[in-house]
Amino acid sequence: MEEPACPAVLPQPDAAALDDPEAQSRRLGALRAVLAEQGADAMLVRSTSNVAWLTAFDDVFDDEAAHGLLVTGSAAVLHTDSRYESAARSAAARAEGVSVSVERTSHGAFAVRSVAPAAASASLFKRTKPAALAIEDSMTLAEFRALRSEVAKQKAPLKLKETSQAVLRLRAVKSRSEVARMRAAQAITDAAFAHIVGFMRPGMTEREVQRELEDFMLRQGAQGLAFSSIVAAGAHAASPHAIAGDTRLESGMCVVLDFGARAFGYCSDMTRTVFLGDPAPRLRSAYQTIRQANEAVEAALRPGVTGKAMHELAESVLESGGFGGAMGHGLGHGVGIDVHELPNLSPRNPDALVAGNVVTVEPGIYQEGEFGMRLEDFGVVTDEGFEVFTASPHDPVVL
Amino acid sequence: MEEPACPAVLPQPDAAALDDPEAQSRRLGALRAVLAEQGADAMLVRSTSNVAWLTAFDDVFDDEAAHGLLVTGSAAVLHTDSRYESAARSAAARAEGVSVSVERTSHGAFAVRSVAPAAASASLFKRTKPAALAIEDSMTLAEFRALRSEVAKQKAPLKLKETSQAVLRLRAVKSRSEVARMRAAQAITDAAFAHIVGFMRPGMTEREVQRELEDFMLRQGAQGLAFSSIVAAGAHAASPHAIAGDTRLESGMCVVLDFGARAFGYCSDMTRTVFLGDPAPRLRSAYQTIRQANEAVEAALRPGVTGKAMHELAESVLESGGFGGAMGHGLGHGVGIDVHELPNLSPRNPDALVAGNVVTVEPGIYQEGEFGMRLEDFGVVTDEGFEVFTASPHDPVVL
Repeated sequence: MEEPACPAVLPQPDAAALDDPEAQSRRLGALRAVLAEQGADAMLVRSTSNVAWLTAFDDVFDDEAAHGLLVTGSAAVLHTDSRYESAARSAAARAEGVSVSVERTSHGAFAVRSVAPAAASASLFKRTKPAALAIEDSMTLAEFRALRSEVAKQKAPLKLKETSQAVLRLRAVKSRSEVARMRAAQAITDAAFAHIVGFMRPGMTEREVQRELEDFMLRQGAQGLAFSSIVAAGAHAASPHAIAGDTRLESGMCVVLDFGARAFGYCSDMTRTVFLGDPAPRLRSAYQTIRQANEAVEAALRPGVTGKAMHELAESVLESGGFGGAMGHGLGHGVGIDVHELPNLSPRNPDALVAGNVVTVEPGIYQEGEFGMRLEDFGVVTDEGFEVFTASPHDPVVL
Repeated sequence: MEEPACPAVLPQPDAAALDDPEAQSRRLGALRAVLAEQGADAMLVRSTSNVAWLTAFDDVFDDEAAHGLLVTGSAAVLHTDSRYESAARSAAARAEGVSVSVERTSHGAFAVRSVAPAAASASLFKRTKPAALAIEDSMTLAEFRALRSEVAKQKAPLKLKETSQAVLRLRAVKSRSEVARMRAAQAITDAAFAHIVGFMRPGMTEREVQRELEDFMLRQGAQGLAFSSIVAAGAHAASPHAIAGDTRLESGMCVVLDFGARAFGYCSDMTRTVFLGDPAPRLRSAYQTIRQANEAVEAALRPGVTGKAMHELAESVLESGGFGGAMGHGLGHGVGIDVHELPNLSPRNPDALVAGNVVTVEPGIYQEGEFGMRLEDFGVVTDEGFEVFTASPHDPVVL
């Protein structure tokens, strides 16, 4: 077989570090504790990311919201359809305490009928409270309506208990194997940055750079992209969510690259700003400022600090640098199976961080019509502070 | 600049054919007619695909559900945040009848406060019905709860009117420019199939083939993938939603390739099954059967036939071929901005198709532990019948 024209594959992470044979039982146990606390007998989990986390099944789920996981005090049943049956059954055979059903009915009807006996017995023994089925308030209103009419058909009273981010909050504290998976995803992302710095030059379009960046990550073993990559040059980068287009890279511009890979089911996320030619003093000073903001936060992160305090620390550094109010977005967010998870480093998060939280730190400065820049790492809060996964340095990259 | 090591770029589609300067006003007009019929004064649209379709803004939206479009009888306001402001404003400047707000409040609060004056005036003039704000039942339950409490804060009565697939149903009938965009996306996809047939050979893993397929589409100008591509070999293909993995291609297997590009904001979707070496008689007969099912349906598709009838036609051909009950999924689905839209060709769709519907036709046969195969085209229902976008032939491909 001839050699493909692409770079060598990165060293593979240690398989044992990625593995976590007790993930299901530990995660389901944590959810059961929450349910007990809330007085719920069972929960119907519909968010695919939540289902993926609770089952810890690899290579079963794709983007479709085609699954429901019913968790009771003693069982966990993945209700899916025939398209996923064989993959789900073979994952369940390797897992502890998760079974599979492909009964042809809606997830809601499946859940309600499964808990009906518990409801009947609660009613029979005149428990003061009716049986309760917890649901996620991230489900659609349409599905909630259908679930309600399913409940109305039952003889024994059954209560729906709406929960908000219950599983997401559990997911906010990462295990060792999850950290290893994100480190592996970030290794691909760092390699992609080193590669793209050698590739990009004036005259190329944003889109050409984006293609090369994404190709590289996929060829290096990424399962997919964590999100559609941002490559934004010059004034275009003043939009923090710019879509890569036909803008050509020109000398004197700075270019924002915000990208991430998915590997082993987990995301990475990084941003670097690259200068084409020696930066003008104003660009240099803005870069110096976001770098200081980034490093001040990374030095301050530890269990006990709040998301709000971290955001405000970054804002205060930006202000001292002469760029107060130029960020406009939150400083960072959690990362895991999804690229946006809990906790947020934002003015709206007054909660203290805990060890195991994985967050991005991404201060930015945006000057309409002029330029935009951002410097983003991600890492894990530990007992001692903050361990950064991103290996690419902060020194300005001038091409 | 040196030549990149990648194939030549496909001919670009005619820009005029992709353009539709009256898209916003026509689409908003159609939605206003629906609202009037349902007795709603305004609608808050939260699905990003619905917002993208109604505004017809290119290159503004990404995957985030960060936008709300408030449509009243006389105005349409895109409520977004600062990250999208400059892209949205420049698209709005080129569009008819859509303005932009980045007021820092939730989409729900923005909508409720915007229609409050109408509610007050309805109340003042003692209209028999209170003012009504239509919403999509695809919104999350959490957002619905927040919207309800916003409504409760208002002095004048305001009713929330839950709608189901109202915009999706409008989107099911495609315009000429939408068809041109999907043809452009399909041209990339057909080119990718021709390329991958020359690339794949025994010994490669599914994942290697998937990478090359996806790279090719991105290098040929796809904005992204319509979905994560399926490359499933041998018995692995008995899962219709198999995730490409380390299974190696071996002589005697058949390999299912299901993939699509996004271009100009629209998706393509195709599946081909490729044989590695001369197929065994059973594989040959199964392929013959899915091909007959595909072609019978494509010949029968026209305005007036139902989704259910088309599904049943395919099932009956599969049964005559000796593979009754071996499909297990719906025959096809609508395609547009999203890869799964209306109408469905499935037992659950008793509605007649109309000209302008764009659907896939994808009969499949899955034999657990043995093999899977599927043959999928997509195209548009016209007054005369069905125009297939997919240019790759149906003759068996034997490598």
